[in-house]
Amino acid sequence: MINKIINEEKITLGVCYYPEHWPEDLWEDDFKRMKELGFTYVRMSEFAWTIFEPKEGHFEFDLFDKAIALAGKYNLKVILGTPTATPPVWLTEKYPEVLNVSHNGVQFKHGSRRHYNYNSKKYQELSATIVTEMVTHYRDNPYVVGWQIDNELNCEISEFYAEADHMAFKNWAKEKYQSLDALNEAWGTVFWNQTYTSWDQVSLTLPTVNDTSNPHQALDEKRFFSDSTINFAKIQADIIRKLTKDQWVTTNGMFGHLDNHQLTEDIIDFYAYDSYPNFSKVIKDTSSKPLRDRKWSLNLSTVRGFGGNFAIFEQQSGPGGWVNRLEQPAPKPGQVKLWSYQSIAHGSEMVLYFRWRTATKGTEMYWHGINDYHNLPNRRIAEIETFSKEIEKVGPALYGSTYQAKVAILTDYQNSWDGEMDKWYGNFIGQSKEAWFKAFQYNHIPVDLTNINKKTTVDHLSKYDILIYPHAAILTKETAKLLTNYVEQGGKIVFGCRTGYKDLTGQPYQKAFPGYIADLVGITVSDFTLVGAYEAAPKVSLFNKDEQEALGFNEILHADNDDVEILGHFTNDYYAGEPALTKRNHGKGTAYYFGGVFSYEIAEKILADLKPDDYSEYFDLPESVELAVRKNDEKTFFILLNYASDAQPMKLKQPMIDCLTDEEVTGSLTLTAYDVKIYSFS
Amino acid sequence: MINKIINEEKITLGVCYYPEHWPEDLWEDDFKRMKELGFTYVRMSEFAWTIFEPKEGHFEFDLFDKAIALAGKYNLKVILGTPTATPPVWLTEKYPEVLNVSHNGVQFKHGSRRHYNYNSKKYQELSATIVTEMVTHYRDNPYVVGWQIDNELNCEISEFYAEADHMAFKNWAKEKYQSLDALNEAWGTVFWNQTYTSWDQVSLTLPTVNDTSNPHQALDEKRFFSDSTINFAKIQADIIRKLTKDQWVTTNGMFGHLDNHQLTEDIIDFYAYDSYPNFSKVIKDTSSKPLRDRKWSLNLSTVRGFGGNFAIFEQQSGPGGWVNRLEQPAPKPGQVKLWSYQSIAHGSEMVLYFRWRTATKGTEMYWHGINDYHNLPNRRIAEIETFSKEIEKVGPALYGSTYQAKVAILTDYQNSWDGEMDKWYGNFIGQSKEAWFKAFQYNHIPVDLTNINKKTTVDHLSKYDILIYPHAAILTKETAKLLTNYVEQGGKIVFGCRTGYKDLTGQPYQKAFPGYIADLVGITVSDFTLVGAYEAAPKVSLFNKDEQEALGFNEILHADNDDVEILGHFTNDYYAGEPALTKRNHGKGTAYYFGGVFSYEIAEKILADLKPDDYSEYFDLPESVELAVRKNDEKTFFILLNYASDAQPMKLKQPMIDCLTDEEVTGSLTLTAYDVKIYSFS
Amino acid sequence: MINKIINEEKITLGVCYYPEHWPEDLWEDDFKRMKELGFTYVRMSEFAWTIFEPKEGHFEFDLFDKAIALAGKYNLKVILGTPTATPPVWLTEKYPEVLNVSHNGVQFKHGSRRHYNYNSKKYQELSATIVTEMVTHYRDNPYVVGWQIDNELNCEISEFYAEADHMAFKNWAKEKYQSLDALNEAWGTVFWNQTYTSWDQVSLTLPTVNDTSNPHQALDEKRFFSDSTINFAKIQADIIRKLTKDQWVTTNGMFGHLDNHQLTEDIIDFYAYDSYPNFSKVIKDTSSKPLRDRKWSLNLSTVRGFGGNFAIFEQQSGPGGWVNRLEQPAPKPGQVKLWSYQSIAHGSEMVLYFRWRTATKGTEMYWHGINDYHNLPNRRIAEIETFSKEIEKVGPALYGSTYQAKVAILTDYQNSWDGEMDKWYGNFIGQSKEAWFKAFQYNHIPVDLTNINKKTTVDHLSKYDILIYPHAAILTKETAKLLTNYVEQGGKIVFGCRTGYKDLTGQPYQKAFPGYIADLVGITVSDFTLVGAYEAAPKVSLFNKDEQEALGFNEILHADNDDVEILGHFTNDYYAGEPALTKRNHGKGTAYYFGGVFSYEIAEKILADLKPDDYSEYFDLPESVELAVRKNDEKTFFILLNYASDAQPMKLKQPMIDCLTDEEVTGSLTLTAYDVKIYSFS
Repeated sequence: MINKIINEEKITLGVCYYPEHWPEDLWEDDFKRMKELGFTYVRMSEFAWTIFEPKEGHFEFDLFDKAIALAGKYNLKVILGTPTATPPVWLTEKYPEVLNVSHNGVQFKHGSRRHYNYNSKKYQELSATIVTEMVTHYRDNPYVVGWQIDNELNCEISEFYAEADHMAFKNWAKEKYQSLDALNEAWGTVFWNQTYTSWDQVSLTLPTVNDTSNPHQALDEKRFFSDSTINFAKIQADIIRKLTKDQWVTTNGMFGHLDNHQLTEDIIDFYAYDSYPNFSKVIKDTSSKPLRDRKWSLNLSTVRGFGGNFAIFEQQSGPGGWVNRLEQPAPKPGQVKLWSYQSIAHGSEMVLYFRWRTATKGTEMYWHGINDYHNLPNRRIAEIETFSKEIEKVGPALYGSTYQAKVAILTDYQNSWDGEMDKWYGNFIGQSKEAWFKAFQYNHIPVDLTNINKKTTVDHLSKYDILIYPHAAILTKETAKLLTNYVEQGGKIVFGCRTGYKDLTGQPYQKAFPGYIADLVGITVSDFTLVGAYEAAPKVSLFNKDEQEALGFNEILHADNDDVEILGHFTNDYYAGEPALTKRNHGKGTAYYFGGVFSYEIAEKILADLKPDDYSEYFDLPESVELAVRKNDEKTFFILLNYASDAQPMKLKQPMIDCLTDEEVTGSLTLTAYDVKIYSFS
Repeated sequence: MINKIINEEKITLGVCYYPEHWPEDLWEDDFKRMKELGFTYVRMSEFAWTIFEPKEGHFEFDLFDKAIALAGKYNLKVILGTPTATPPVWLTEKYPEVLNVSHNGVQFKHGSRRHYNYNSKKYQELSATIVTEMVTHYRDNPYVVGWQIDNELNCEISEFYAEADHMAFKNWAKEKYQSLDALNEAWGTVFWNQTYTSWDQVSLTLPTVNDTSNPHQALDEKRFFSDSTINFAKIQADIIRKLTKDQWVTTNGMFGHLDNHQLTEDIIDFYAYDSYPNFSKVIKDTSSKPLRDRKWSLNLSTVRGFGGNFAIFEQQSGPGGWVNRLEQPAPKPGQVKLWSYQSIAHGSEMVLYFRWRTATKGTEMYWHGINDYHNLPNRRIAEIETFSKEIEKVGPALYGSTYQAKVAILTDYQNSWDGEMDKWYGNFIGQSKEAWFKAFQYNHIPVDLTNINKKTTVDHLSKYDILIYPHAAILTKETAKLLTNYVEQGGKIVFGCRTGYKDLTGQPYQKAFPGYIADLVGITVSDFTLVGAYEAAPKVSLFNKDEQEALGFNEILHADNDDVEILGHFTNDYYAGEPALTKRNHGKGTAYYFGGVFSYEIAEKILADLKPDDYSEYFDLPESVELAVRKNDEKTFFILLNYASDAQPMKLKQPMIDCLTDEEVTGSLTLTAYDVKIYSFS
Repeated sequence: MINKIINEEKITLGVCYYPEHWPEDLWEDDFKRMKELGFTYVRMSEFAWTIFEPKEGHFEFDLFDKAIALAGKYNLKVILGTPTATPPVWLTEKYPEVLNVSHNGVQFKHGSRRHYNYNSKKYQELSATIVTEMVTHYRDNPYVVGWQIDNELNCEISEFYAEADHMAFKNWAKEKYQSLDALNEAWGTVFWNQTYTSWDQVSLTLPTVNDTSNPHQALDEKRFFSDSTINFAKIQADIIRKLTKDQWVTTNGMFGHLDNHQLTEDIIDFYAYDSYPNFSKVIKDTSSKPLRDRKWSLNLSTVRGFGGNFAIFEQQSGPGGWVNRLEQPAPKPGQVKLWSYQSIAHGSEMVLYFRWRTATKGTEMYWHGINDYHNLPNRRIAEIETFSKEIEKVGPALYGSTYQAKVAILTDYQNSWDGEMDKWYGNFIGQSKEAWFKAFQYNHIPVDLTNINKKTTVDHLSKYDILIYPHAAILTKETAKLLTNYVEQGGKIVFGCRTGYKDLTGQPYQKAFPGYIADLVGITVSDFTLVGAYEAAPKVSLFNKDEQEALGFNEILHADNDDVEILGHFTNDYYAGEPALTKRNHGKGTAYYFGGVFSYEIAEKILADLKPDDYSEYFDLPESVELAVRKNDEKTFFILLNYASDAQPMKLKQPMIDCLTDEEVTGSLTLTAYDVKIYSFS
């Protein structure tokens, strides 16, 4: 958790800055203005390898020495990025083996970013050198407080098929399986005669007819990509740790094929997230009641799950997008402030804006910063100035408090990664996760996203009254036991279709569905069907209420125990009348099983039956307002975020203190467009 | 025809089984249960190369020896597949030249299936070796009755651009054309200066700007792919024939770029089809009155055209699809039985289900078999058990009877292959074929799909009262003469637009359309237009009835003879009032020409004028019910298949025997959902 | 301008002919028939390299010698194409380095056309040789009057990534920037650490992650492609000029990545355009009131801008399209004549039809010519015969007259090329250009398309009362000064959003928008937003009238001067009521600024305020009729073209002479479908 590492006693703000982009005579004014805005931190240097090492083995620090000294003059603390996200052209020209390669064999070259692979020994060596040089040079610099490793590991691309990756994977597989027999068994190579007879034959997946590789190999491949990424970060973290005393280490994310929980636990001091809620404007969302920018609360909850409170290293502060893709509108007036509070509400203790001034060159010249190309005043900087003053007021009190949730959605990497290829359940995970998150959000019930893995204990889970674990196709005997214990001790859990039919290799068990949790839920699946793309959607009726569409997959449930309650039925096709939702009390707790994919409407119905604790004794809130709760030993903070573009009525059922005005308020109130309120009891 | 080869006197059932996938201790129970289900055949080993030859030149037969012996113990007859569809990784590692390559030069590698090319001498040699070894080992095995060559030749991919293919094509072209002048003439290389001046320059089509190659070369390329496939099958068939006495040879299909008629005539003993009607659930069909799974009757009719009665080597018995594509719903209760009868109705004498148990590993772990991953009872196995009992009752009588059709749709490979590239008629063939098939189906008129080629005689065609030959762009003088003779002898024939304007190279004649059949139909095309993608559809009125859309292509017809009857006109645009459909009596027969693409509605109207024989004196049937007729020397069987998900009324106008119950029935009856009835006269 | 070069005193017709495709015995009849049709020109040989040079260094001229002599016998003048668009297979086989390569590294090979690159020294050398040989052979031929260089330079593909192109670009960049520092500055390589430290590292853009290259390099790349194309044409032009006396030089277009203005000025004698208006049938156009084939008037106006009157070397004369793409319907009766007049109306002095007879082979066997495959009469040839007679009558008078326009739309290559990659304004240019063109067309106001570049003078611009310059993101201080002068001298100019924020490298200025023209228009942009793909469109109200959608991009304008008139406002979202359209009188003229992308409806509204001169005193015309005006010293010709498929009423307000009938006409008249009238005062 960031609070043990960072020696601030308040929530702090800052900004990303690129001194190398601007004439030196702008720097001082820029730093001065940052200070005026109340900023504490400035991040620099993450794309500056050639500045530091203009030719191999020749190092220069003048530019950043000057910039850091000037920043320090204005009491700014400097975070330095290691520049390995963008290798210099002299490097890729001399050592083309460091380049990443597409699955079909196209080598990615100089001209963009992240065109390297993690397993090239040469790249690891040259990265270690530049990091060693930079850290050695700056370890005693009084203004440099911490390090960001690389930049956005696995952003843009998280697949690696260079020769070095193929070789490293072979060794990874040898290490994991020890024998070819074990590997053949795990990958099910007897199917389609894929049996390996020599380690030389083993590689990452290759181009194939119909672009379809062995799915078990493809799952291991993703585990390997994650391990490779973590190993690459570790090389740098080890150097920094070895050479420094007080400087901390982090990296910013979050991106694919990377076990961020392991990364946070093993490699870095705390996690830094890059939050761009306006990506919601370039993603088509045809679901009912779309979350839009509020979906970033789901992302932030995921990040909080990595290791508690965290930092934002890039907070969107203007229109975003590349020259040729991802073009985003400008944030509406109020949204930058709203999103900054959104980050804090979910546990961020530090918010750095991306970026000080919009770049006048390159692929990201439309990723606008606080300032436009010119240095003229604009509404965004005015808004951030207001926010900064507010946070100066509430920041010290909020700092160190933690997000409060009594319900959680369970996630795990095994199913995420296996599900990327497996269309028979993979897409359902995201759909159901979002449906449940919406149901919690619109009912103002704070929720965590909690990762479950081999080390998870029942104590960890028992923090939560309710767990939602939608479509864990891969579910081991040990996990089933863990979840059964959780229920026995009083927990409630909800499963969806396709649960429990696969082992850790991604191979189906020879067991009735839902595998090892059948005993817990008391049912087996007697018949099932995927819902075809061009078929009319079947329907379900839950709790004898009106029908909903049962999209994706339908499982007809068979109660194996008398104590199983049937809470819902399918209502059409040949399985009309068959059970679709069951509930079984077990020990002190309860287990639900739904033979389908969760829509928001279905999650809402089940949520009503789960009866979670909520805050309705304090608030009467409209749907567009998120309620987040941060608490420390002294106080509970209720943070209300209005995502609507218009004013919204709300009701405070008990008198509270408005932490931004120190006034006591109660009764009917109005939140203006994109408004944020922080309340606590006096 | 299968009946001369297979020594059964009944329709037989069976299943595909993969002993190598399962622990040995499951085998005996599996075979025992197969026997209980009434199965006669079990197919094995088509993906087991590495089991037989774990390293080059080292052969092992233990696993299959045991499995075959056990199958034999339960009176199962074994069909062995040669394992060449999936080369071992030791093979592709050592001899990468055996791999197939995409048109753009990407080499397909280990990890899926069918990643080899047919023309690699090394692959031919290694294939010959494994086939020789297997056949030598099993030729005297009392339980092994026949061989399946490879598996699904040209499935997944039917284009081959490895170096070996380019070289083989050069030789194929040299053999065909003898001189470069002849090749240049046939490929029209004078256009765009493509003239070849040395045989070294000749190859398969290559990557080009806009991905558009010489169309005449592209046509020859498809002929070559077919010849290559047949040659590869022949290498294996010759070995099997040379080494065995009573064992038969087949292969399973059907897939692209392969002259299955030639294959069936020259290489194999009978054809085996793999029937998966639930693919209809993953293909979007926006046509009117879509055929859905009933379209497999069109496929089965096509297969019947290869060589009469046939076998089904893979009959869909559950949900299908790969891990990452083609995801299909489960068959509805009754559909597996319906589809099995559909196969038999169209001439199948043997039905093997795919497959005994759903694989728990690999790309096809969702191609469900009769059994699920577990061995628990399910509704599909119950349904097959019912079906097996029915077929035990009716199978002996039905066996050897043949499908009866007095009308046929003509097809040929030249136009299919040329039309793949040629958007000016190619797509029309499939549309019109399906439109006419629908019209025949919904009017309960059994129809054949008949191939026409150089060897076709007027006697062969004269079996049919009516022929539909929709858009034969390529139509030689000889074919025109053949069809003229057919009409003179009393046949009726229907042509569509774009008929007869090309020769066998795919080059237009310098003749008025429709080329050599102009005399037969008595018209020429005086003006024409393709219908643009963004234009409103023109209309036609046929037989002075309401208008239909005239999609695709419009030809304005000019009657060159007085005896030409104008049966329809275009009704809008500048050619309103111009002839669109003509009819001319010639000899004892009649020739129709329609200057457009056939829709179902248009085919219906013309069909009414054609007045084909039908079975309306016996039956009054709803649209959803297919009528198929099989007949032998003794009896005529009327097979009624209800594709609807609900009960359908029908009427038997004369008393008949229900062959499944032996009861006499007549009058108004009901077919339940997916029901099948077999009637005959007592 | 063509009139100084071609020694005709009338508008002439002709046709493209391929003697190499047809038996020699057809030639004489073909030429004879051309003569009867009134044709003057025949173009030949542009794809005939192998005919002339069947093997390297061995030349043959017999075929074309004979064809040219025969053409001459029928008084046809011959235009020869240099055959470099289609290298022989012996050439590409021997020198594969001449082949073009895709951005991702796929080499384009023999089998189509234009598969070579411009920078291969070997290809330049072999091209020079064949051109030298042909010109030497034909320079004294009395029938050969001119040369077409290559064929459709940059058609099909206008990107080149062969090794030779990478090398040539390196040299081009060295030449342009002289130092790496200058190059790094221009390409903004400090962003993402792309700094080049050696010239060896410099290349064209390379394959990258997410297929996104440095945008400034990408802009230079397009300039380089244009320079390479022009250089390749120059090599040939120089040879022709050096070896010939009276023969002229041209090339036909127009295609991408080519500065046709520079080409016309520096390399060729006049420009030849290939006009295929039926491409409008294969392009989806969902805009309001689509222009369809009338959009070719926009193209023709663009071509006229290259250098005044021009020629048409390929005028569509039948259905068009390749075997496998671009399938077009047949022109309706009257359209070929209409389109021929459309070419002439816009300044063409010569119209060659593509082509004499439809090819019976190759990729373009559906690019129909005047004649079908056969030589039978058809409606198209009859229509051309009529047209030829008409042009014989009016051609002499029209010849040498020039198109009259008092308004112009400004275009430039810098923004076109930069905007290809830049989604933040690039697509707006075409949308607004078309919207304005529509507004002018439907109001019957002739308009020019005028290129603006470094050499443009205020005198040149002052020919126009009104200029529209929609979205010139790149706009230099010099250009701003030029446009300011234009306004000061009395011109009216209209700008759209995104004007003036970039310099010539494509890098944004550090200035308030709209940069250097802010003073002229008197406003700055105080806030802005791109309109997201999934957002509801904002609205504007102009001139206090009903609302229009404000798609694409919205700029909130701030009037910096008192004399700025606010003519329109946004009407919703947070910027409702903010200025969207301004007008400022400056000097004797006026400058408008619209903070959005122009739709047809918006252009119409502004046009009403601009009050351009029109011809309403002479005509009352329906929307479907285009009015073009050609004028010479003696006379003004009003050419009326009816694009509608039905008759259209019109009114002549003053008596005029119908130039085709010599009759005086006045009052209410009717134009039949696709009709053309030419009027002048007596």
